[in-house]
Amino acid sequence: MKLIDGKATADEIKKEIAEEVKQIKAAGGKTPHLAAVLVGHDGGSETYVASKVKACEEVGFDSSLIRFEDDVTEEELLKTVDKLNNDPDVDGFIVQLPLPKHISEHKVIEAIDPRKDVDGFHPINLGRMALELPSFVSATPAGILMLLRKYKINPHGANVVVLGRSHIVGKPIALLLMQKRTCGDATVTVCHSQTRNIKEICLDADIIIAAIGVPEFLKGDMVKEGVVVIDVGTTRVPSTETKSGFKLKGDVAFDEVAPKASYITPVPGGVGPMTIVSLLKNTLLAAKKEIYN
Amino acid sequence: MKLIDGKATADEIKKEIAEEVKQIKAAGGKTPHLAAVLVGHDGGSETYVASKVKACEEVGFDSSLIRFEDDVTEEELLKTVDKLNNDPDVDGFIVQLPLPKHISEHKVIEAIDPRKDVDGFHPINLGRMALELPSFVSATPAGILMLLRKYKINPHGANVVVLGRSHIVGKPIALLLMQKRTCGDATVTVCHSQTRNIKEICLDADIIIAAIGVPEFLKGDMVKEGVVVIDVGTTRVPSTETKSGFKLKGDVAFDEVAPKASYITPVPGGVGPMTIVSLLKNTLLAAKKEIYN
Repeated sequence: MKLIDGKATADEIKKEIAEEVKQIKAAGGKTPHLAAVLVGHDGGSETYVASKVKACEEVGFDSSLIRFEDDVTEEELLKTVDKLNNDPDVDGFIVQLPLPKHISEHKVIEAIDPRKDVDGFHPINLGRMALELPSFVSATPAGILMLLRKYKINPHGANVVVLGRSHIVGKPIALLLMQKRTCGDATVTVCHSQTRNIKEICLDADIIIAAIGVPEFLKGDMVKEGVVVIDVGTTRVPSTETKSGFKLKGDVAFDEVAPKASYITPVPGGVGPMTIVSLLKNTLLAAKKEIYN
Repeated sequence: MKLIDGKATADEIKKEIAEEVKQIKAAGGKTPHLAAVLVGHDGGSETYVASKVKACEEVGFDSSLIRFEDDVTEEELLKTVDKLNNDPDVDGFIVQLPLPKHISEHKVIEAIDPRKDVDGFHPINLGRMALELPSFVSATPAGILMLLRKYKINPHGANVVVLGRSHIVGKPIALLLMQKRTCGDATVTVCHSQTRNIKEICLDADIIIAAIGVPEFLKGDMVKEGVVVIDVGTTRVPSTETKSGFKLKGDVAFDEVAPKASYITPVPGGVGPMTIVSLLKNTLLAAKKEIYN
C-alpha cells in the first residue's frame, strides 16, 4: 500500500507556481490577484477562506477578502460581483459557499464573469468542461486529476466508481475521467444513495472516488485487492483529541481499506490540500488568459 | 417483449402540441417560430432539416429555413446567428450540424443566445442541465426520457448502462438519469471504445441506452432477460431493398436482443421520431419563455 501524499504534492506544485509568479514579476508582468467574497461567520467557510488567502501569499499572488454580514442583500452581493467582474486588477474571484438562505446561490454564481470564475462553478464552465472545451475545472476534481498524474495512476480502461453525484465533485470528476484525454478514458459508474448493489459495484472497481459525504462509508469488505482509493470526504466530527474540538473524517474506513489498496489518500492530507492548489492554478490560468482570451 | 413505439408516441405528443398552439393562437398569442440554418447539401442534414420544417407545419408553428452554400464564411454565419438572436419573431433556432471544416462549430454554437438554443447544444444549457437548473435539454436525451415516461419504465435504482460518451447523447443522458428526479435516480455506467469488460457490464444492466454508433454492436449474449433496450443508433448502410439506396441500422442486433428484452425500441421508428418532437417541445418552451424569463 502506498499513501498518496496530498500535502507534499500540493507543496511541490505551490513551489512551481511561486517560481512562475517570480518570473512573471521579474519580466514586469502583473501580479496574479485572487479575490474572495465571504458572507457571514460559518466556521468551515472562515477556515477555507483563510487558507486560500494564506496560500495566495505563499505563492506571491495578491489577494483580497471582501466580507459581508449574514444579512447582506442579494442585490448588494450581485453589485460586488459586478464590481469584481469589471475590476481589471482582479484576475479571478470566488464567492465562498454556502450563502444564507435568502440569497440564490445559482443567481450569484451565474453573475460571475466566466473568465474570472476560478472555482469553475459557473454553468458555462461546467458545460465547456463536459464538451471538452477549455474551461476552469472546479478545484476538487482538478486536484484529484493532479494526484492521479503525480502518482502515475492511469485510469485508461479502468473501472472507476464514483460514490456521490454532487455538482462540485461527483458529476464533474465522472465526466473528466470518462473523456478521451491523457488522464481519462475510464469506464465510470456513478453510485449514490439510491444505488441498490453498491457493495458489488465497488468490489469490481479498480479506482474508487469516495465523495458521498458519509464518514467511513467505504468498508474493507467493499473493495478488491489492489484498488486505488481517493477519499474526498471531509465531515467534521466532534473530537476530544484536538484543540478545535472536532476532527475531519473521510468517506473511507481507512484502517480496513488501506491494507487492501495499492494507493490511498489519507484524510486529512490527501485531496484537501490539492483543492487550494487547484484554485491557485486556475487563478494563474486566468491571469495568463489561457482559458479565455 | 413489448415494442416501444416512438412513432405513435411522437404523433400523440405532436397532437398535444398542436392543440396547445391552437389555444395560444385563439387567445391572440404569438405563433411559435422555429428557424433552421442549413449549410451545404449533406444528404442526412437535408433530410433532418426537411423533417423539422414539416413537423413545424404539422403542429402549427411558423418555420423558416436559411440556407448557405458550403463556402459560407464563419463571419457570415455568425452574422446570421446574431440576426436570429435579435429577431423578436424567432423563438428558437438551430444550426444543423455538421458544419464545413473551415467553420468552428463550437464558436457558432456559443454565439447562439442560450434562450433560443432549442437544440440545447450551448455549453450553458448543458451546464445548467448538469446542475439541475432549468435548461433546454438536447433532443435525443429528452426524447429518451419521454419514451421511458410514456412506457412507465422507472429508472429509479436501476443499473443503467450507456454505450457511448458523445456530447449530444451519451454524456447528457447519463447526467439526466443519475439525477434526483422523477425519471432519474439510476446508477449509471458509461461505456465506450476503451471499456475493457463491456459484455459483463451490459449483462448486469437493467436498462441499456445504445448510442455508440456501431451497427448491431449489442448482441443477444450481452444482455440479461428482461432488459430494457433503447437504441439510439442510426447508421446509414447501403441497401438494395429501399428506393433511397440505404437503410438505417441501429446499434442493437434487434433479432437477437428483442426476445430477451422486456421493452425495446426499433430502428427506425423508436428514438428517431422522438428527437423532432423534443425540438418542437423546446421551441414551445422558448415561445412561452418557460426556461429563461
